[in-house]
Amino acid sequence: MQKIPYQNKLYAFIVLVFLVLPTFLKAQHDGAHPKATWIWYPGDYEIWLSNQMQAKRTERGAFFPPLWRYYSPYPLVTFRKKLSLKQDDVVQIHTEGQAKIQLDGKLYYGDPLNLVIPAGEHTLTIKVYNQQKTPSLYVQGNQVHSDGTWEVTYEDKEWIDASGRTSGESGTKWDRVGYWNFNNKQELPSEFQLETKPKKAIQIMPYKKGYLVDFGEETFGFIKLHSLKGSGNLNVYYGESEEEARSEEFCETLDRLKFDGTQPDEFLIDQSRAFRYVNVQPESGITLDSVSMLYEYLPLEYKGAFSSSDELLNEIWNISAYTMHLTSREFFIDGIKRDRWIWSGDAYQSYLMNYYLFNDNPSVKRTTYALRGKEPVNSHINTIMDYSFYWFMGIYDYYLFSGDVDFIKQIYPRMESLMEFCLQRVNENGMMEGLPGDWVFIDWADGLTKEGELSFEQILFARSLETMAICAAINKDDEASNRYRSLAEDLKQKILTQFWSEQQKAFIHNRIDGELTNEVTRYTNMFAVFFNYVSKEKESQILQHVLLNDQVKQITTPYMRFYELEALCALGEQEYVLDEIRDYWGGMLALGATSFWEKYDPTEKGVEQLAMYGRPFGKSLCHAWGASPIYLFGRYYLGVQPTDPGFATYEIKPNLGGLRWIKGKVPTPKGSISVYADRKQIKIRGISGDGKLRFKSRNKPSGVEGIKFLGDHTYEVAIQSSKEYMINYRAF
Amino acid sequence: MQKIPYQNKLYAFIVLVFLVLPTFLKAQHDGAHPKATWIWYPGDYEIWLSNQMQAKRTERGAFFPPLWRYYSPYPLVTFRKKLSLKQDDVVQIHTEGQAKIQLDGKLYYGDPLNLVIPAGEHTLTIKVYNQQKTPSLYVQGNQVHSDGTWEVTYEDKEWIDASGRTSGESGTKWDRVGYWNFNNKQELPSEFQLETKPKKAIQIMPYKKGYLVDFGEETFGFIKLHSLKGSGNLNVYYGESEEEARSEEFCETLDRLKFDGTQPDEFLIDQSRAFRYVNVQPESGITLDSVSMLYEYLPLEYKGAFSSSDELLNEIWNISAYTMHLTSREFFIDGIKRDRWIWSGDAYQSYLMNYYLFNDNPSVKRTTYALRGKEPVNSHINTIMDYSFYWFMGIYDYYLFSGDVDFIKQIYPRMESLMEFCLQRVNENGMMEGLPGDWVFIDWADGLTKEGELSFEQILFARSLETMAICAAINKDDEASNRYRSLAEDLKQKILTQFWSEQQKAFIHNRIDGELTNEVTRYTNMFAVFFNYVSKEKESQILQHVLLNDQVKQITTPYMRFYELEALCALGEQEYVLDEIRDYWGGMLALGATSFWEKYDPTEKGVEQLAMYGRPFGKSLCHAWGASPIYLFGRYYLGVQPTDPGFATYEIKPNLGGLRWIKGKVPTPKGSISVYADRKQIKIRGISGDGKLRFKSRNKPSGVEGIKFLGDHTYEVAIQSSKEYMINYRAF
Repeated sequence: MQKIPYQNKLYAFIVLVFLVLPTFLKAQHDGAHPKATWIWYPGDYEIWLSNQMQAKRTERGAFFPPLWRYYSPYPLVTFRKKLSLKQDDVVQIHTEGQAKIQLDGKLYYGDPLNLVIPAGEHTLTIKVYNQQKTPSLYVQGNQVHSDGTWEVTYEDKEWIDASGRTSGESGTKWDRVGYWNFNNKQELPSEFQLETKPKKAIQIMPYKKGYLVDFGEETFGFIKLHSLKGSGNLNVYYGESEEEARSEEFCETLDRLKFDGTQPDEFLIDQSRAFRYVNVQPESGITLDSVSMLYEYLPLEYKGAFSSSDELLNEIWNISAYTMHLTSREFFIDGIKRDRWIWSGDAYQSYLMNYYLFNDNPSVKRTTYALRGKEPVNSHINTIMDYSFYWFMGIYDYYLFSGDVDFIKQIYPRMESLMEFCLQRVNENGMMEGLPGDWVFIDWADGLTKEGELSFEQILFARSLETMAICAAINKDDEASNRYRSLAEDLKQKILTQFWSEQQKAFIHNRIDGELTNEVTRYTNMFAVFFNYVSKEKESQILQHVLLNDQVKQITTPYMRFYELEALCALGEQEYVLDEIRDYWGGMLALGATSFWEKYDPTEKGVEQLAMYGRPFGKSLCHAWGASPIYLFGRYYLGVQPTDPGFATYEIKPNLGGLRWIKGKVPTPKGSISVYADRKQIKIRGISGDGKLRFKSRNKPSGVEGIKFLGDHTYEVAIQSSKEYMINYRAF
Repeated sequence: MQKIPYQNKLYAFIVLVFLVLPTFLKAQHDGAHPKATWIWYPGDYEIWLSNQMQAKRTERGAFFPPLWRYYSPYPLVTFRKKLSLKQDDVVQIHTEGQAKIQLDGKLYYGDPLNLVIPAGEHTLTIKVYNQQKTPSLYVQGNQVHSDGTWEVTYEDKEWIDASGRTSGESGTKWDRVGYWNFNNKQELPSEFQLETKPKKAIQIMPYKKGYLVDFGEETFGFIKLHSLKGSGNLNVYYGESEEEARSEEFCETLDRLKFDGTQPDEFLIDQSRAFRYVNVQPESGITLDSVSMLYEYLPLEYKGAFSSSDELLNEIWNISAYTMHLTSREFFIDGIKRDRWIWSGDAYQSYLMNYYLFNDNPSVKRTTYALRGKEPVNSHINTIMDYSFYWFMGIYDYYLFSGDVDFIKQIYPRMESLMEFCLQRVNENGMMEGLPGDWVFIDWADGLTKEGELSFEQILFARSLETMAICAAINKDDEASNRYRSLAEDLKQKILTQFWSEQQKAFIHNRIDGELTNEVTRYTNMFAVFFNYVSKEKESQILQHVLLNDQVKQITTPYMRFYELEALCALGEQEYVLDEIRDYWGGMLALGATSFWEKYDPTEKGVEQLAMYGRPFGKSLCHAWGASPIYLFGRYYLGVQPTDPGFATYEIKPNLGGLRWIKGKVPTPKGSISVYADRKQIKIRGISGDGKLRFKSRNKPSGVEGIKFLGDHTYEVAIQSSKEYMINYRAF
């Protein structure tokens, strides 16, 4: 993230964005929703769906819902559209819920599938009530149809003026509706299901009274029992490892089923679960022939790609992509076995990986809405202070990668209220410390201090304030933008001056009662690097004294490895990082991983690797934050990143990291960018817009016009179309 | 309300209430809930039930939900109880929703109907998730059972301290649960239905192709069609009047039914409606024999009573009580035909009538919760400014009549947030004017000015601030109490000095741009009297120049007649008021009313009386605010009122109002007070506590010990037990 122009450059480009992007986005929008789509109050469907999804967690059969506050959809909302019809239209109105239909304020008593709207100017208003599901609307006529241009309110206040006249207008706040991809009247949002397809086991072994079944790799779905006959009990024990599936006493998930003999022969268990192995144990009276599954997934296209001369790295990329796909579901979740919850810190990394793999904006938006919930705010996101900050940072990244100004406008009020919640909790020094009810997380690491003012929390807080400044400007609230910018600047200066130790050449972990401790951890130091908060000189000091210093406590979660390796890449240590990836992710593969884990400590032996949280199989073996190579390879080896929102400008800085060749694709809103590089040649297929290819060469490169020399062996080529650019050079 | 000690006396008694009432309330509580009852987050069930009830409004078959914001229950809540068990207990846990059960923080995997809790100290925690209904809990063991002492939170934040330890305690706000009367595990709150009983028509006349049916009086329920045969359409047109039922084109409610021949012979329409007449019109292919109904009602006991030597007044009381009963349903609603909604101004009067008729505290609490909704506040209650104020005033009255400190504590946070909403909307003069989105109502009256600072809104606002001061003190927040008291005092002084016109000897209606207008209306003047805000001298001036002055615009709604007559009673004009009641309510009876109306203008003729809102049958003929004689007779003729919360002290001031005799009962939390008075004798059966009987007599009264002479022909007798007191006297 080193070069993200977080601070000043973006401002200059907001103007550009408002001039250039709207046309593009409108075209994109019209393309995506030429016809009617189901609409709702923004965020409400996402909250409703996430409530259901997150309540699917069980622990050994016991229900285990999230630990944080649940919100709900507004049960009564009003949709509105101002119409200008050239001719009469006959309109069909479908709703999830009971509907009150008004045309120009007059109550309509007729058939909702046959509303005739005469030519001319009209206002169509439809109020929908649904206490159980998200109130939703689908309108289809020849000229009139429900889409993202409709407005909605949850508080359709009738205002009666001094003379007794009623108005539906004054005092009512209207918002743009939310929608996803339910583009058919029969496709009710409340009936959404992920897709499924049948999948067979690779091995079915007789085991005890039943079977031990191996599906060959980590997977997710519904177990199917074949030729199931008789009555009695049958237990299914799931395992991400064979040990777990065999451990009827300690496996994390299980199903205890009772049959009375009337069940269908082919019986599908109604809850989907994560596993590679299942141990199916019928009790007496029950028989079955075989076991298979329905694999359950969100249909997403792998738009990004990466391969190289190193097969191990290619396998790491493939398994990362599969891990990412398994955890990209109704929302971006943490892991598929245990929580199945949306955690903001985890989702933040999923967003970044998504930009380099699926580039699916709706998944980012759904997750962002689900995490935030609604008003009022009375705790941090997931109750974790750092996770509130990642939520803001995720919105900034979304804006940068998508250029979606509409979403920034839509989510901004919720950003404001969460930030006000944070600002009400600062200490007299303007810093945030954990208060009762706050969970200060940072990372799973033994003995990590959470006491006092933590430099890590402040650096995320500063970045969040910068995000607020940018989004306030997009919302044309200059006063708020200036306020947030000034708070961000103040805090950043405090971090740089109050937490930096000239003695240790590093940011110190925390300060207690105004006194710096001696503790140096990697967290703040690595974020300071890729946030571009420190001088080149300090970057070098951090590299030497922290990142490459074995005396500083090692990181053991892929979660923080993500940022550690990112910081090293940002400092040009691509070759070193590849070795780390080979060791760390390669280490998991060597232990038989078919998806990447929640935590990996190479020093642990055998089944120790399966334990966590004091439980023998507590660890998740398929965790989104394990998939970071997707991001690292795309961003720091293929070297593609937007430098202005929506790839209005972007850069490509291929880096071989010592490999013979690398090759891949990075999706953008305007199509994919292809990159190939070996030690003699770079081939780029760009996109329309203002791209810059930058690379180092031992000799003067050739092959295209206008190669610019920037000094220090570095050259630049402007990439302005989607044709292929081929450059001959000599890599360092 | 003249003698309610709103300002100072109450303060002195708060101490008393905290010493005396808890014991009494605890006894009452233990009596009412000796066993388990279903519990939920306070207000959540009420909000859920009211959402459903208020969505039952239809207009000629079209769905017509409320105009204001709907809230929802928290879909995920956690219940908790700290237990101290002398011996092991086996506990059954029933929930509406999925449940996570933890004993002392440990997840329980077993059967929820067989949780064994060992003797000793424990914490039982049960998290319930339900997106569709209110998450509710019923726990039954020998020692453990769910009741009002349980706690609940909607945000069970896990707090992890600096050393990584998890705690379910810190940072989580726990509230006392809500409950009603679901005292059986099978009685699921979500399945609540009002009671029903069959009722026959008094006349079934063949009419057109079907029948015109007369049930003899205003009623409410489900129409039943007997011996219904064939297939085709059948329409039911409902009428509060015969004219309305006959008017297929303009009747307000109707049902259009389609039958395919498979319907049961005895067909019950699934929606309950208000009517006296129904016009049942089968189309060809359909036949039926007869029509009856299921009367639907809330089972409430008439604990209050009133009769007198004037049969017309007795009939007025009876019809008032019936009107009140018809509108006392899941909640106190405005009227049964049209809105079926909970309107705060209407409910405020229902509360007062309830205290003199049913004295049903749960109905007041349900209605108060339903009106207020939850956080955040972003409009006035029902969107009406005055209706926010009545909400506060209703809580004060509830406290005065019930002494229920627990409820005041439970509702206080919602009082605070609504009051902060109000205080954010004052102008620079500290007064509230209508802002966009606010509906300023006052009354249905042609040409009523709503412009500028309205003295009426300020006087309700002042009273609301006084209520806040009292309730803040109950919550031991002295700082807030002082703040509210000082705001109330300031505002009251401004009202008294800035709106009083020495020239007109009256409060002026409004002030525009700091300039008083010349307009005098009754509203502020009558409230100033029974709020006891003005001197005796000004009271007389208001009586003469406003209340008894025909030049001041007449009131035509029973809604404001309520307060007008109350003010007159408070000024001792009981005899005059009886004449008004005979004219106004007697006028409705003379026109055939079987329940009292939303509006009555004696000058209107024939069917004009049925019209309102520009619709020929728009007027409600059964409106709660039409039932005020219940309140007036109990409060100002029987003369019974609490003078301290929960009738810790009370007074009885019988007033014959020119009648030969009056007789009746007023319910209190401690039993009923009976009053009989004629011109020579007063008979009282009081309650335990500190009651004062006051009356005027021409001679020295006798019959009991300790009659105290207070001057001005007035005598006082202390009533301290529930035995009968009989006094001989001579009435004036």
